Amino acid sequence: MSTLLNNRFMLQTATAERLYHDYAKNCPIVDYHCHLYAGDIADNVSFENITQLWLAGDHYKWRLMRSAGIEEKYITGDADDYEKFLAWASVIEKAIGNPMYHWSTMELNIYFDIKEPLGLANADQVWETVNDKLNSGFYRARDFITSSNVELLCTTDDPIDNLAAHRRIDEDLSFMTTVLPTFRPDRVMNIEKKDFAQYIGLLSMATDLPVANWNDLKILLHQRIDHFAENGCKLADHAMENFVFTLTSDAEADRIFQKRMNAPDMPLSPEEEAAFKSALLLFFAGEYHAREWTMQIHFGCRRNNNAFTFTRLGADTGFDTISGYSDFVTPMAEYMSLLNEHGILPRMIIYSLNPNDDAIIDTLIGCFQDGSEPMRIQHGAAWWFNDNEQAIKNHLRSLAAQSYLPGFIGMLTDSRSFLSYARHDYFRRILCDYLGGLVERGEFTKNMELVGSIVQDISYNNARNIFIPSSEQM
Amino acid sequence: MSTLLNNRFMLQTATAERLYHDYAKNCPIVDYHCHLYAGDIADNVSFENITQLWLAGDHYKWRLMRSAGIEEKYITGDADDYEKFLAWASVIEKAIGNPMYHWSTMELNIYFDIKEPLGLANADQVWETVNDKLNSGFYRARDFITSSNVELLCTTDDPIDNLAAHRRIDEDLSFMTTVLPTFRPDRVMNIEKKDFAQYIGLLSMATDLPVANWNDLKILLHQRIDHFAENGCKLADHAMENFVFTLTSDAEADRIFQKRMNAPDMPLSPEEEAAFKSALLLFFAGEYHAREWTMQIHFGCRRNNNAFTFTRLGADTGFDTISGYSDFVTPMAEYMSLLNEHGILPRMIIYSLNPNDDAIIDTLIGCFQDGSEPMRIQHGAAWWFNDNEQAIKNHLRSLAAQSYLPGFIGMLTDSRSFLSYARHDYFRRILCDYLGGLVERGEFTKNMELVGSIVQDISYNNARNIFIPSSEQM
Amino acid sequence: MSTLLNNRFMLQTATAERLYHDYAKNCPIVDYHCHLYAGDIADNVSFENITQLWLAGDHYKWRLMRSAGIEEKYITGDADDYEKFLAWASVIEKAIGNPMYHWSTMELNIYFDIKEPLGLANADQVWETVNDKLNSGFYRARDFITSSNVELLCTTDDPIDNLAAHRRIDEDLSFMTTVLPTFRPDRVMNIEKKDFAQYIGLLSMATDLPVANWNDLKILLHQRIDHFAENGCKLADHAMENFVFTLTSDAEADRIFQKRMNAPDMPLSPEEEAAFKSALLLFFAGEYHAREWTMQIHFGCRRNNNAFTFTRLGADTGFDTISGYSDFVTPMAEYMSLLNEHGILPRMIIYSLNPNDDAIIDTLIGCFQDGSEPMRIQHGAAWWFNDNEQAIKNHLRSLAAQSYLPGFIGMLTDSRSFLSYARHDYFRRILCDYLGGLVERGEFTKNMELVGSIVQDISYNNARNIFIPSSEQM
Repeated sequence: MSTLLNNRFMLQTATAERLYHDYAKNCPIVDYHCHLYAGDIADNVSFENITQLWLAGDHYKWRLMRSAGIEEKYITGDADDYEKFLAWASVIEKAIGNPMYHWSTMELNIYFDIKEPLGLANADQVWETVNDKLNSGFYRARDFITSSNVELLCTTDDPIDNLAAHRRIDEDLSFMTTVLPTFRPDRVMNIEKKDFAQYIGLLSMATDLPVANWNDLKILLHQRIDHFAENGCKLADHAMENFVFTLTSDAEADRIFQKRMNAPDMPLSPEEEAAFKSALLLFFAGEYHAREWTMQIHFGCRRNNNAFTFTRLGADTGFDTISGYSDFVTPMAEYMSLLNEHGILPRMIIYSLNPNDDAIIDTLIGCFQDGSEPMRIQHGAAWWFNDNEQAIKNHLRSLAAQSYLPGFIGMLTDSRSFLSYARHDYFRRILCDYLGGLVERGEFTKNMELVGSIVQDISYNNARNIFIPSSEQM
Repeated sequence: MSTLLNNRFMLQTATAERLYHDYAKNCPIVDYHCHLYAGDIADNVSFENITQLWLAGDHYKWRLMRSAGIEEKYITGDADDYEKFLAWASVIEKAIGNPMYHWSTMELNIYFDIKEPLGLANADQVWETVNDKLNSGFYRARDFITSSNVELLCTTDDPIDNLAAHRRIDEDLSFMTTVLPTFRPDRVMNIEKKDFAQYIGLLSMATDLPVANWNDLKILLHQRIDHFAENGCKLADHAMENFVFTLTSDAEADRIFQKRMNAPDMPLSPEEEAAFKSALLLFFAGEYHAREWTMQIHFGCRRNNNAFTFTRLGADTGFDTISGYSDFVTPMAEYMSLLNEHGILPRMIIYSLNPNDDAIIDTLIGCFQDGSEPMRIQHGAAWWFNDNEQAIKNHLRSLAAQSYLPGFIGMLTDSRSFLSYARHDYFRRILCDYLGGLVERGEFTKNMELVGSIVQDISYNNARNIFIPSSEQM
Repeated sequence: MSTLLNNRFMLQTATAERLYHDYAKNCPIVDYHCHLYAGDIADNVSFENITQLWLAGDHYKWRLMRSAGIEEKYITGDADDYEKFLAWASVIEKAIGNPMYHWSTMELNIYFDIKEPLGLANADQVWETVNDKLNSGFYRARDFITSSNVELLCTTDDPIDNLAAHRRIDEDLSFMTTVLPTFRPDRVMNIEKKDFAQYIGLLSMATDLPVANWNDLKILLHQRIDHFAENGCKLADHAMENFVFTLTSDAEADRIFQKRMNAPDMPLSPEEEAAFKSALLLFFAGEYHAREWTMQIHFGCRRNNNAFTFTRLGADTGFDTISGYSDFVTPMAEYMSLLNEHGILPRMIIYSLNPNDDAIIDTLIGCFQDGSEPMRIQHGAAWWFNDNEQAIKNHLRSLAAQSYLPGFIGMLTDSRSFLSYARHDYFRRILCDYLGGLVERGEFTKNMELVGSIVQDISYNNARNIFIPSSEQM
């Protein structure tokens, strides 16, 4: 029998196995960052077939298919769902060393009880088995969440969102998982984008608040943050290609904002763009700190690199890359230092898409730990392109060497798929393998209660303690 | 008995051994990038002794000797060949962890049946054994190529080359290996170099075409590319210290070109240099795409760093370094995107000398795969300073995680030595070790036929399918 | 029994064990770079308790405690020593994967014969055992040095230092370890700092030499270097956030120096700052070369990032970070090339705080090896944040692949603690594990005499041969 996906999958030592089975695998999931649509959860959507469930919106898979030489017709084109599934099966069966091979195999196993990895040989059987289940009525959106033991999940939402779907979920007492919004004001930050003024106009309409100047904008954003807070939000998220920060006065922010609003066709200078974003970053941090929110910052991604496909397929279709070596240390250190001087440094989670940034982030966050809680400034889990065995291990190793691993906030899916909770299991196996290896090599105590408690803290407790009020903890 | 160089060398698991012995080792070699001189192959040169064969032109070895504290006299100086060989023996026997230790041991073993690594203890014996063979008449240039099972090799050639040596080889029916030229127009690109105008003059003379302006230059280059194509060329190669690209008009390219030609002593601005190179890059890509050539881009090397030794020894003598962290993502993404919009994006192979670029290149190329063939945009094999066990494994792991490893075009020697085919064997062992490890740890199917086919595709089939017309394939 | 800290600690193969026990562990220590105070050695200070010995000045530990959520009161605040020790025990017992866990466990074991890792369970016992010993009179500063078999240690000293403490140590014949100063003129280099003019004034007073201009400054520095040389100094050290070098005339250096001295409140431009530092770097290299000193350059650290804590706690309190990706290759290559052309390139040791620089430095130094001795230009041991198992192994692997590992100058503590010699033992175990692994996997000869000699050269001989005159070697 294959060892793939048996009890020992990714667990190379007996200690790793024990840590996983005795401590990790039964922990609930706190998925504090994902891209599910709250509306889909509210509606408890169902899926016609495995292509709709698996391939319809997953640009990770599309990208792999293109790399494997599959025509676009079978990816986002007009081939039928069965043909697309076959194309995927032909690709994934040979994708050695790719995390999607593991994820796909785990997802078929965990959710559909399929024992073998997908390939052309069993594609028809998988197609039928999964589709039958999807059409049984027992495999709808919420079923995947519930069977994955998800205690809390946080979606990612634009400030313009009225959060009605979140309220519908909250009011539905039949569904036990807490679903909270995350405030992600990228479109407010991205003053360089063509549709900035238009977006601000929409925001103004949605809130019935005028936005004639910088002060108006802050009042409006304050209101939106309150609105999110009233709906349970505890997290913000900022995605920036490269992190920038320069000290900027309100007057300067106002000048740049009005210039942009009044002449949407006149480009800003890079300095103006950075100044406006800096003023917002300062404002947002204060708002978040006041509400004890956690501020996430993602940087290092250059998006929509292929103009030809962007015109045809739009964003988030598989054409993004690591942005290279960004000079984030100085601006981020200056930003955090200023916030700390003002007493408004919120809890933060920093993520870079460049795996070379691991040690740099790990040493930078160490400069802003204030002892009020373990790892108040976090280096977020290996993200996106780094969500694979090697990069996860490198991330853990560096974090352990440079900071205090037991305080790590742990895994998130960052996913648009209802099956992606398998990635928490994947992460936990890798975590247990790493820690188990240290124990077996005599590099840490063999006290299993102690090591097991670290596994559980990283797998669950640390995130729970931050995002679930102690009164609501089980 | 030592395990070094026995059947298990570099193969840590039983599956790795099986993959290597059953699938990899007997594959022919397609060495699509090397620096052998076609004239040496046409002449079927012979070697007086092992120093001439091994040390006379190998700046990798020179550099290691200098690092080990060997006087220049015994490297490029006037010591005799035996003394130089002894000096090398004294260095290589202690070079633990250095790939040259493995290469040297493998080369002595494969080509001269010497079982033990070279050291001072067996240096005299090796000197005699090898020299006897070299003087036997059966160990000439072509013999090394033939006994290495090389099906195709591509040299690296300046546009000025008349390719007469390639034609001599082609016409010699007694030699079965195909030897093709590669078009490497670095001297056309390097407008900042002192001898640029002089070189353009030589090119003009060689082709009997006037080069008074940018348009003339394009006409001349078009002719040279045709000339190379007529001689079987299927690859171009560009070496750039750092990759640059900015959109440049023909008029601007013309102005810069004429400025440089008319005033060779007046330096160009960095912007002008980049603009001229960009215009050429755009022109070349169109030419290559039209002929279905593959375009290689090498960047990340800062050359001739030591002015003192450069004056005495010239280029390619062991004084080059990784150039640091270059900002290649934006220009390369913009370049590829523009080519793709114009429908002239050729097949590409990207190589960086900085090992930190692995994940960055792997995600960047993913933005330009068009599904027309597996891995149409390739991340080239671990290059030069990265041609060692650790960097090769890191390269493979990242490529597998970020893209589709079965489509990888595989190994090349990049070498000036007739013995370097051992590096293909070295690479195959490391590949099999990596893949075998994944299988043994349950991270991929145990279906050996499938894994073996991946090994053969990377070792041979992928490169063959690109560079050898199907009509000529065996 | 735990394998932690038994004979096999960090030694994963039988060959590694043998290399460590037969070759490494009994080598004396040449600690050519540390931050002990010569005065403390001269005074042979004693320690009231383990907190004073261990926690009073160790910002590595402070930083870890803050990351673990310990209040500042228990770190640098007014909690009593026992409370601080307990806080540390609560942190270190869970610090899996952190080198401080290993160091702490080794230090307690080696110096105080404590067999188990520190934790809350045995904290009281450790507190009593260690304090009893500290108060016995046999555990004073020199006792730790002597029992660690330290043959030579080099402190780090400001040019202003009169080195009286070093002379007191030298004259005390009861203490066998040689203690030499290191010339570290950072405050002369840091012309951008607010107290630059004030510092130069102090230097002028201390030496009774006027410093009205650049020439005066060079005369004074020449005198200080002589003063250090007379006291046995053989090393200089330069710490720079980012390495800079541009060719600068004496006239320009003079202009910048006088501008700064005469108007301390007027900031220099970045170009002026770089120019002044470059002029000094050129001057210093000549001085060092003339005296056959070794020049150390440390770069890649951004210091004092947290303004709030800097105001309260000052420098070197745990708020430093890797500075990011610096563009050091071009200036450093140009610097070394110029020195080499002038015949004044001293022996150098280059250290970067960014672990991504490993391969870059390893290839850069290869451009300046002149064959006069093995590895005349060294890549210094994994430094500070990189002084952990993974980064040490990565450093060794890259150095071995790119250069000549047997010539590596080896380990240093870089520490302010009298217990840190355990880090030499830690390094030697990791070295033996790395080399032993290569041997066991058949990647190097099994000739143990040869491998053992490499271990001893790196552990001891190479540094001894450089820093201890052959007449004084044992």
